[in-house]
Amino acid sequence: MIYLDNAATTKPNEWAFEQAQAYALEKFYNPSALYTEGYALQSELKKARSALLSKVADENFFELIFTSCGTESDNQAIFSFARRGNAVTTAGEHSAVLAPFAELKNRGSVETRVAPLKKDGRVDEEKLLALVDGKTSFVSVMQVNNEVGAINDINAIAKAVKAKNPRVIFHCDGVQGYGKIPFRLSKEIDLYSISAHKIGGMKGVGALIKRKSLVLPPYLIGGGQEAGRRSGTENVFGIKQFEFAAERKFATLKEDYERIKGYRELLWERLDKEVFFRISSKEATPYILSVSAIGLRGEILLHMANDMGLIIGTGSACSSNAKNRYSKVVLACGYDEKTADGVLRLSFSSQTTEDEVLEAAKILNEIAVDLKRRMK
Amino acid sequence: MIYLDNAATTKPNEWAFEQAQAYALEKFYNPSALYTEGYALQSELKKARSALLSKVADENFFELIFTSCGTESDNQAIFSFARRGNAVTTAGEHSAVLAPFAELKNRGSVETRVAPLKKDGRVDEEKLLALVDGKTSFVSVMQVNNEVGAINDINAIAKAVKAKNPRVIFHCDGVQGYGKIPFRLSKEIDLYSISAHKIGGMKGVGALIKRKSLVLPPYLIGGGQEAGRRSGTENVFGIKQFEFAAERKFATLKEDYERIKGYRELLWERLDKEVFFRISSKEATPYILSVSAIGLRGEILLHMANDMGLIIGTGSACSSNAKNRYSKVVLACGYDEKTADGVLRLSFSSQTTEDEVLEAAKILNEIAVDLKRRMK
Repeated sequence: MIYLDNAATTKPNEWAFEQAQAYALEKFYNPSALYTEGYALQSELKKARSALLSKVADENFFELIFTSCGTESDNQAIFSFARRGNAVTTAGEHSAVLAPFAELKNRGSVETRVAPLKKDGRVDEEKLLALVDGKTSFVSVMQVNNEVGAINDINAIAKAVKAKNPRVIFHCDGVQGYGKIPFRLSKEIDLYSISAHKIGGMKGVGALIKRKSLVLPPYLIGGGQEAGRRSGTENVFGIKQFEFAAERKFATLKEDYERIKGYRELLWERLDKEVFFRISSKEATPYILSVSAIGLRGEILLHMANDMGLIIGTGSACSSNAKNRYSKVVLACGYDEKTADGVLRLSFSSQTTEDEVLEAAKILNEIAVDLKRRMK
Repeated sequence: MIYLDNAATTKPNEWAFEQAQAYALEKFYNPSALYTEGYALQSELKKARSALLSKVADENFFELIFTSCGTESDNQAIFSFARRGNAVTTAGEHSAVLAPFAELKNRGSVETRVAPLKKDGRVDEEKLLALVDGKTSFVSVMQVNNEVGAINDINAIAKAVKAKNPRVIFHCDGVQGYGKIPFRLSKEIDLYSISAHKIGGMKGVGALIKRKSLVLPPYLIGGGQEAGRRSGTENVFGIKQFEFAAERKFATLKEDYERIKGYRELLWERLDKEVFFRISSKEATPYILSVSAIGLRGEILLHMANDMGLIIGTGSACSSNAKNRYSKVVLACGYDEKTADGVLRLSFSSQTTEDEVLEAAKILNEIAVDLKRRMK
């Protein structure tokens, strides 16, 4: 089975799983406990916090709060800070951002504004900036689009936003960027969401990185864990596995970035241009190649590929439950429904091999030709 | 090392961990994905949901939503339904309930009322009922007190509350009851919170059981997982491990209950009555024995026991970060600060052995006498 749906989730790093296993079955204590075995886990959590944070940020200026997933991180950021005036986001965001914005609109507590995308899936910066005014309390812009892979220069965008209104709280959903894109947080970023399972960690673990001087209200309230900002017994095993997986991921981030970029181009090169149209730009993350088989249904191709031993995605796995058949992001890029209907998302991990990429191209060409023939 | 702090957290069931491992490392797919390998996980989640729910409730009337912990379940229940008029709870609740109530009070959106406890730690039912009136929208009463082990007859309480005001939404924090106490949810209970790591599951997994006909607003909003009631990629590994651990736990629930009751009485019998005063009643859960070494500090005894190879708790592990030195629950039972200061919580699991109990009694007697002598 060739797995090219790594933007949906990645296989957990087995070495990290084995390393972390002791925190599940031996050091299983409650980190809030007063005895040595429990209390010692606090320093293990501290180590994990520091390791995960230092990879992308200055520890003097930022801190990290563990959550249960990227969605929780996004929800906590948005509901904590989009509380007055207006809040601005982009049409390319994950539903973990767009759904809370829809909820804010529904409540009527804050005016919501959505900036359009450029053809390549990046936010239109000028139009975004035009939406920011003196009453803007919160801006959320994703780092890497989860459907087409477009990279927003969030440090530059945050800087421009703050030049216009320095009181804005700037949040970034970094779930598809963290551990994949060479990047460090500038001081203009206030909040940055990450998720373990997109880079070889376990599902059920995420984090919210925040500017230290920003007072973050808790979203889950109770025992006062995470210095009062996120109550609930800490998922020590999941957190340590995330730490170890991230260590491995960041150690080869730059080589992986270049190699995967090569694979993405190789895959595109081998795809039948009579059938496939490229949506992801060359400047997008190497980890995602979005293409459209125009005139064909992506969902049917996905199932045909599945039968041939190739796992791929269409739009976002997370919105597959939604009513809408078409990728909202691809439509927001300005493509028509026919193009959106044929979208396939091919997403890589650092484990992806050249042989898999070549085989995937072969399968995709075969099934597209097959489906075309059957439709005649 | 003898571990008698199982009310804080339990050692994950190793068999369940091994059984679930395939869902971490092989069937690691995103359950929202459209291909077979992803979609198949939906039926695995369904199986887990049904297995965990059917142990305590009628599946025709109740359903189960996975969350990341008991705290999240409690928060979602409270913030979803305590929205108008007044909300009633008890002085014995876990901070995952009391802290959200304090937040509600702080917001001023709903009047909060707290019913006192009886000497044994159960809520004073008459006084609770006196607080319920026509304007009460929400009542939350825990099943088993996490500090002293007192069991509230929540089916009877819910019935009495609804007789007074049938429109009340009745929530129960069942974290210390689920898998330990023979019990089934009556139709008067609307919401019931559970947590995996208290019964051999992993940290980072919980659930909220709800009456099917009750419309539950989502607390985490995004991709629409859990039928829109809890977004975020499902923690399949953690959920399956919870399912397997619960299967084992419920299979021997009644035998364990009787055996552990015997151990609790054996431990109490062996403790030096010149030093230790019993707080937990005989009717409390067998899994928790709360005692006080009056005139001694529980925290010092905890550390001394730790040095001797015995792990015990004082109050709730989850509130050890809090400012307050004294167990709030023990004070709420009507004991003075001196008694509260000497509290030790000895909590068992189904893995606890008679030898461990005998050895624990020996250590506790020794260190108490030792500390008393040193204080002279």
